[in-house]
Amino acid sequence: DFLEALVEVKPAFGATLDSLEGYRLHGMIDYGPRYQHLLSSCRTLVQQVKTSDNTPLITCLLEGPAGTGKTALAATVAIESEAPFVKIVSAETMVGYSEHAKCSQIAKVFDDAYKSPLSVIVLDDIERLLEYVAIGPRFSNAVLQTLLVLLKKAPPPGRKLFVVGTTSLGMVMQDMEMAAAFNVALHVPRLTQAEQKSVLQQLGAFSGPDLDAAVGELLEPEVPVKRLLLLLDLAKQGQTEEERSVPVTRWSQVLRDLAVA
Amino acid sequence: DFLEALVEVKPAFGATLDSLEGYRLHGMIDYGPRYQHLLSSCRTLVQQVKTSDNTPLITCLLEGPAGTGKTALAATVAIESEAPFVKIVSAETMVGYSEHAKCSQIAKVFDDAYKSPLSVIVLDDIERLLEYVAIGPRFSNAVLQTLLVLLKKAPPPGRKLFVVGTTSLGMVMQDMEMAAAFNVALHVPRLTQAEQKSVLQQLGAFSGPDLDAAVGELLEPEVPVKRLLLLLDLAKQGQTEEERSVPVTRWSQVLRDLAVA
Amino acid sequence: DFLEALVEVKPAFGATLDSLEGYRLHGMIDYGPRYQHLLSSCRTLVQQVKTSDNTPLITCLLEGPAGTGKTALAATVAIESEAPFVKIVSAETMVGYSEHAKCSQIAKVFDDAYKSPLSVIVLDDIERLLEYVAIGPRFSNAVLQTLLVLLKKAPPPGRKLFVVGTTSLGMVMQDMEMAAAFNVALHVPRLTQAEQKSVLQQLGAFSGPDLDAAVGELLEPEVPVKRLLLLLDLAKQGQTEEERSVPVTRWSQVLRDLAVA
Amino acid sequence: DFLEALVEVKPAFGATLDSLEGYRLHGMIDYGPRYQHLLSSCRTLVQQVKTSDNTPLITCLLEGPAGTGKTALAATVAIESEAPFVKIVSAETMVGYSEHAKCSQIAKVFDDAYKSPLSVIVLDDIERLLEYVAIGPRFSNAVLQTLLVLLKKAPPPGRKLFVVGTTSLGMVMQDMEMAAAFNVALHVPRLTQAEQKSVLQQLGAFSGPDLDAAVGELLEPEVPVKRLLLLLDLAKQGQTEEERSVPVTRWSQVLRDLAVA
Amino acid sequence: DFLEALVEVKPAFGATLDSLEGYRLHGMIDYGPRYQHLLSSCRTLVQQVKTSDNTPLITCLLEGPAGTGKTALAATVAIESEAPFVKIVSAETMVGYSEHAKCSQIAKVFDDAYKSPLSVIVLDDIERLLEYVAIGPRFSNAVLQTLLVLLKKAPPPGRKLFVVGTTSLGMVMQDMEMAAAFNVALHVPRLTQAEQKSVLQQLGAFSGPDLDAAVGELLEPEVPVKRLLLLLDLAKQGQTEEERSVPVTRWSQVLRDLAVA
Amino acid sequence: DFLEALVEVKPAFGATLDSLEGYRLHGMIDYGPRYQHLLSSCRTLVQQVKTSDNTPLITCLLEGPAGTGKTALAATVAIESEAPFVKIVSAETMVGYSEHAKCSQIAKVFDDAYKSPLSVIVLDDIERLLEYVAIGPRFSNAVLQTLLVLLKKAPPPGRKLFVVGTTSLGMVMQDMEMAAAFNVALHVPRLTQAEQKSVLQQLGAFSGPDLDAAVGELLEPEVPVKRLLLLLDLAKQGQTEEERSVPVTRWSQVLRDLAVA
Ligand SMILES: Nc1ncnc2c1ncn2[C@@H]1O[C@H](COP(=O)(O)OP(=O)(O)OP(=O)(O)O)[C@@H](O)[C@H]1O
Ligand SMILES: Nc1ncnc2c1ncn2[C@@H]1O[C@H](COP(=O)(O)OP(=O)(O)OP(=O)(O)O)[C@@H](O)[C@H]1O
Ligand SMILES: Nc1ncnc2c1ncn2[C@@H]1O[C@H](COP(=O)(O)OP(=O)(O)OP(=O)(O)O)[C@@H](O)[C@H]1O
Ligand SMILES: Nc1ncnc2c1ncn2[C@@H]1O[C@H](COP(=O)(O)OP(=O)(O)OP(=O)(O)O)[C@@H](O)[C@H]1O
Ligand SMILES: Nc1ncnc2c1ncn2[C@@H]1O[C@H](COP(=O)(O)OP(=O)(O)OP(=O)(O)O)[C@@H](O)[C@H]1O
Ligand SMILES: Nc1ncnc2c1ncn2[C@@H]1O[C@H](COP(=O)(O)OP(=O)(O)OP(=O)(O)O)[C@@H](O)[C@H]1O
Ligand SMILES: [Mg+2]
Ligand SMILES: [Mg+2]
Ligand SMILES: [Mg+2]
Ligand SMILES: [Mg+2]
Ligand SMILES: [Mg+2]
Ligand SMILES: [Mg+2]
Repeated sequence: DFLEALVEVKPAFGATLDSLEGYRLHGMIDYGPRYQHLLSSCRTLVQQVKTSDNTPLITCLLEGPAGTGKTALAATVAIESEAPFVKIVSAETMVGYSEHAKCSQIAKVFDDAYKSPLSVIVLDDIERLLEYVAIGPRFSNAVLQTLLVLLKKAPPPGRKLFVVGTTSLGMVMQDMEMAAAFNVALHVPRLTQAEQKSVLQQLGAFSGPDLDAAVGELLEPEVPVKRLLLLLDLAKQGQTEEERSVPVTRWSQVLRDLAVA
Repeated sequence: DFLEALVEVKPAFGATLDSLEGYRLHGMIDYGPRYQHLLSSCRTLVQQVKTSDNTPLITCLLEGPAGTGKTALAATVAIESEAPFVKIVSAETMVGYSEHAKCSQIAKVFDDAYKSPLSVIVLDDIERLLEYVAIGPRFSNAVLQTLLVLLKKAPPPGRKLFVVGTTSLGMVMQDMEMAAAFNVALHVPRLTQAEQKSVLQQLGAFSGPDLDAAVGELLEPEVPVKRLLLLLDLAKQGQTEEERSVPVTRWSQVLRDLAVA
Repeated sequence: DFLEALVEVKPAFGATLDSLEGYRLHGMIDYGPRYQHLLSSCRTLVQQVKTSDNTPLITCLLEGPAGTGKTALAATVAIESEAPFVKIVSAETMVGYSEHAKCSQIAKVFDDAYKSPLSVIVLDDIERLLEYVAIGPRFSNAVLQTLLVLLKKAPPPGRKLFVVGTTSLGMVMQDMEMAAAFNVALHVPRLTQAEQKSVLQQLGAFSGPDLDAAVGELLEPEVPVKRLLLLLDLAKQGQTEEERSVPVTRWSQVLRDLAVA
Repeated sequence: DFLEALVEVKPAFGATLDSLEGYRLHGMIDYGPRYQHLLSSCRTLVQQVKTSDNTPLITCLLEGPAGTGKTALAATVAIESEAPFVKIVSAETMVGYSEHAKCSQIAKVFDDAYKSPLSVIVLDDIERLLEYVAIGPRFSNAVLQTLLVLLKKAPPPGRKLFVVGTTSLGMVMQDMEMAAAFNVALHVPRLTQAEQKSVLQQLGAFSGPDLDAAVGELLEPEVPVKRLLLLLDLAKQGQTEEERSVPVTRWSQVLRDLAVA
Repeated sequence: DFLEALVEVKPAFGATLDSLEGYRLHGMIDYGPRYQHLLSSCRTLVQQVKTSDNTPLITCLLEGPAGTGKTALAATVAIESEAPFVKIVSAETMVGYSEHAKCSQIAKVFDDAYKSPLSVIVLDDIERLLEYVAIGPRFSNAVLQTLLVLLKKAPPPGRKLFVVGTTSLGMVMQDMEMAAAFNVALHVPRLTQAEQKSVLQQLGAFSGPDLDAAVGELLEPEVPVKRLLLLLDLAKQGQTEEERSVPVTRWSQVLRDLAVA
Repeated sequence: DFLEALVEVKPAFGATLDSLEGYRLHGMIDYGPRYQHLLSSCRTLVQQVKTSDNTPLITCLLEGPAGTGKTALAATVAIESEAPFVKIVSAETMVGYSEHAKCSQIAKVFDDAYKSPLSVIVLDDIERLLEYVAIGPRFSNAVLQTLLVLLKKAPPPGRKLFVVGTTSLGMVMQDMEMAAAFNVALHVPRLTQAEQKSVLQQLGAFSGPDLDAAVGELLEPEVPVKRLLLLLDLAKQGQTEEERSVPVTRWSQVLRDLAVA
């Protein structure tokens, strides 16, 4: 374990903005007031950390169903912050790590952050960092405790830190006292039909008259933005670049075949 | 553990199509519209990965009762894809591995896949990869978390990946959030009596008039294709090559003796 | 663990028929149609493996209460098979092994079997291999998963394998999906009074007129064959070789004293 | 673990009868028919092992409440057997051993026994060997499985083995299938008032007329023999050797003061 | 583990008062009689340890909801004590430690304290020291037992020790017998509306007439002091130093936007 | 573990009476008949071990609520015994030990005791030795089993041993079969009002007329002796040595302020 830890935990300093862009490959589509409110709340919090001396640490949890754009939003906030140290903590870079190595890695990121005058840390998909599974339930208490402590530990004098976490298990985070460890929690919702229409319209996915029909085809009234974009991609399959709008019949077939309507 | 891991995890690059053929030794019999729909849905998804730039990763779960042909179907899709990197991840090649070694092995396959422009990975019998048992229940959370992360991790820019998983424990996969980690889930069914008849007819197992009687002998109305083929093999025991069709009496005796009717 | 494994797992190739004989020391007494049917079903399955090219692997579970002759029957089938590789996998040879060493040992037996054109493996007392105990329940999931995988893994092309398992915990095997992992399951029953009479008569245990009385003395209507033979041994204690038949009074006393009636 | 095992498990061959005498320091008092029946049943079983070729292994469980004389009875049977190899397996000699070391130690005793033409092994206080505690419940499954296997493993040809176990947790042994692993189970009871009187009389503890009064003082109608002898010892405290019989008033005071009546 | 322990546990002697000041960065605002009573009770206990020879060890638990000022109060008591050895035991300095290393660290602090004539130890956020999580629940029993023992262990002759613990899980501490291990438990409350007004007034947060309205905006009648101060900081964002009082509209917006009203 | 054990377990032979005195720093106040009866019962048992040859081992459990003087009583009995080997086994000297090291330490104490003609071992606060916590519940089964075995293991011929244990969890000890492993269990009670008066009077804590009022101030009718003495110490704070009796008003204030009435 000791040797292993030495090997696995290499210093990690800063993140290129490029890598953060990879988390919002489909861009950020302004789907209406609920999106605007989310974005402006995050901006207020970042501003507070930047300007106030009394609040050197602010922590914010983005919570909402799968595919609603939590990670993309967190990445956006981090990019906009223009902080010299920006880092995303994700299970993707820790596949196969031991609990101990994960904790060390996470603590390392915070330690690095404490060396910069202003830092933003994204804790992406906290349930995966915790190796949570509902059966049992099971999770890494070591990682949980590490996060609970680091979320409340003030940076050294003169340093400022903004932490943004994402999760699709809001209730679980509450049971774990994880939600309460954040200063603020914001809910990221599925798209209403009006919001879906707004997205599809901006992308020119359907010809004007087809838009309402297309939205009507989706069986569930609310859809995560990520899913909507995937379905559109599938429906466009085989289309030439010129043909921008998708026929409703093709749309219906995709929804039916892949049982995702 | 450290030494062990070094020893156990050897690089594995690509798979000969030969070894995939071993998973459909009885061939693929077209038993009707339900089979055709399954196959075409899979083809659509593979096509999407191949042609679209927006969707570099698509994941599909084949779920259905034991012996319904999930592995054979997954192998078929992989063979047809003509991808330069095709790999089956199966518990058969990891007997006695530690959790850690299994995770490393699985991560290695994905890492190798990321090096090829187009890859297909088959995660066969996910419950066995997870060492799942209903009593408890128990399973390897380390393997589960590894799969959950890898199923959502985008390949590097310019690389494309299609993942197809098989399982006979659909409900369990849902409780573990495994089902939700796949983009699409397709159900592979047991054969109805009409489908059984279609299979037996194509194999010329019974003389025309006997066909209905033979199907009627099976006590359960629905039968997995793998089981149907085993029963037929047993009924044919001792027959010369020339005698193609099985007498119904012999068929009945096999069903009764082996209590599998 | 690594060193330990090297030490504990020595190659094991083949089994002398002698050692198999040790599992049926009291011989095999034909107690009637139910026994004959069991034996012939097993023979059919072995024959199938031997002659068919389509079914290189057949697996059969013998399930029944304690002492009903499951191990003796499995040994009999193995001996009769005349396979060049015959091996019994039993907890008796793995006392004190670690889970890991047990799995390696079991996998080794299968690997050895794959090298022979025709092999028979007896998995004796599967609950002991699994270290099963009803309190909890507890068992070795590592061994369970090893067996579940090996029971479905096809031998290499041209090799044939017949696996026969024994267990007295049929229900537990079902909960563990172990029963379903076998192609066929056969029930080995306790002896009815008619069958008891048949056994006692063949052994000349009682003088003709005493036979019914002797069977009547047993409180439970059904008795495992192993138990019946032990009681008879106890009742014969102190008798000279010539005196073949036991007096009923002696029989009654043994049953009463040892509270086994 | 490997080194440790080497150090901890030293060969142990045979047992001096002296050490067995230590388990019946207060002698064996014949308290009546129930005791006689127990002793003669044990003798029958030992005799069977000695004389029959068909039953090279017989196992017997002595089960009863705390202090009823199970260990003393087992020691008595072992001494009387006059077997060349006699060994008591007790947790007292394995304090602080690891599970693995315990299993090795136990297996060693059986291995040693297999080298002698006739052996008697006493498994004393099986719940302590198993490290059983009702809360949970918890116990060493490794030790349990080791015992379950060894209790059914036939000695090599020509060797004979009698195993006698003791336990005060009859029900627990049944739940663990431990009771069923023994050929025979005998119940060792608390003393009835008549049996108490018999013991006290044989020891001359009270003057004739006091005897009934003394027995009447004990609040519970049934008392374990070990407890009865301790109370008598306490009551005799300070008495000279000549004064053999205890005054009832002294007896009553002891019972009251130590709240053990 | 052994090596690790050597590395991780470095001697820690005394604490600068500076570091303790860091725990009450917003100062200590006297919000009324309940605060005064808390402070004077603590002072009585410290005085007792200082002056009496009979009570060399006194332990006191500060228990109350999150953010009510427990840590700040404990730091205040420690600073005021003017003890030569003052030490705060906090999970913040033990991130990623093993259970064993945590126990050693804690024991080391107590050992160091025993060398000083008078010592104060703050056990901050006991639930984090214990790695407690309600799901399960799970916690480090090793740390718990270490604390339970050290809280009752008398310092060596001539040494005096005051221990003050903080927790927001009063009920859990009782279930763990942790609460009972302290001599005295004091409750630290959320602020009533009168107390909130007192705090806001002392800080000149609102112009006189706005004060009642501002307090009325908070949805929950009782608010932790830490939260009240954070909200005020957020409301003041962007204000110049001169503008001391916050407009009520700005206050309302902050409460609404961040869903913390 | 092996190395660790070598390091941690150092020989420990005998105990100075001085260190035992530390367990009854407030002296032993004779609070009436219940105390006298406890003391004389213990003396009877010690006497029995000393004088009888038949009972070389006697074990006694002191069970009662927290602070009732169990440890002080056990220390008193040990001191009075004048045994050449007297040893207190307490969790205080084993903070941070592994389970294995604790078991070794405990076994070492018993081994040392077996070398002395007469020994007294105090097992203080058995729940702490067992690392017991009600949540779960959790405890060290290794330590429990070690104690269960050692409590019943007879010392070698010619050696005598008296073991006295203390616990405040009588019911738990019963569930663990720990209580039954002792020969005798004695209940150590909280003080009744009459007994409280007796203690306060002997200490001259209040002027005669105040005594009843002072006792009446305590809200709970029964109080542990340790708590009563602590409250008195606090009430005396700041008093000069001459002022022996405490004013009732001061007494009431202490009870109210520290919420311990
Ligand atoms: N307004 C928007 N907000 C968020 N994402 C958007 C928006 N518009 C478009 N997107 C795109 O939608 C996708 C959102 O996916 P993202 O991975 O952020 O969702 P998620 O909630 O983190 O999913 P998961 O629950 O699986 O972690 C991104 O590709 C992003 O570019
Ligand atoms: N249309 C078909 N679809 C699938 N398999 C078919 C079809 N026709 C014939 N087969 C044969 O049926 C068998 C299906 O077995 P396969 O192992 O794929 O089932 P499975 O569902 O994966 O079983 P398990 O639940 O045990 O993993 C193969 O031997 C295959 O060659
Ligand atoms: N027809 C028979 N079938 C099986 N065993 C028989 C038969 N006739 C006699 N026997 C004898 O009965 C005994 C059966 O014991 P065996 O150990 O095989 O039973 P088992 O069911 O495996 O017991 P367990 O449940 O303890 O494993 C053997 O000694 C065997 O020689
Ligand atoms: N007839 C008798 N049977 C058994 N023990 C007897 C008898 N007469 C006297 N004794 C004495 O009674 C004591 C029985 O104690 P023993 O330790 O054997 O009981 P146990 O049932 O094994 O107790 P535990 O349940 O604690 O293991 C011994 O000292 C033995 O010498
Ligand atoms: N009267 C007061 N009592 C306590 N803290 C006060 C008081 N007045 C102002 N404060 C400030 O309030 C804050 C209290 O925060 P503190 O961390 O002590 O709360 P806490 O109860 O320990 O929180 P947590 O439950 O998160 O551990 C500190 O910044 C402190 O300076
Ligand atoms: N009659 C008495 N019996 C016992 N203790 C007494 C008596 N009179 C005075 N004391 C004092 O009371 C205190 C009893 O505390 P002690 O630690 O023995 O209690 P305890 O029951 O062991 O507490 P805990 O449950 O915390 O272990 C000691 O300081 C002792 O000197
Ligand atoms: Mg996300
Ligand atoms: Mg399959
Ligand atoms: Mg068997
Ligand atoms: Mg005994
Ligand atoms: Mg705090
Ligand atoms: Mg005590």
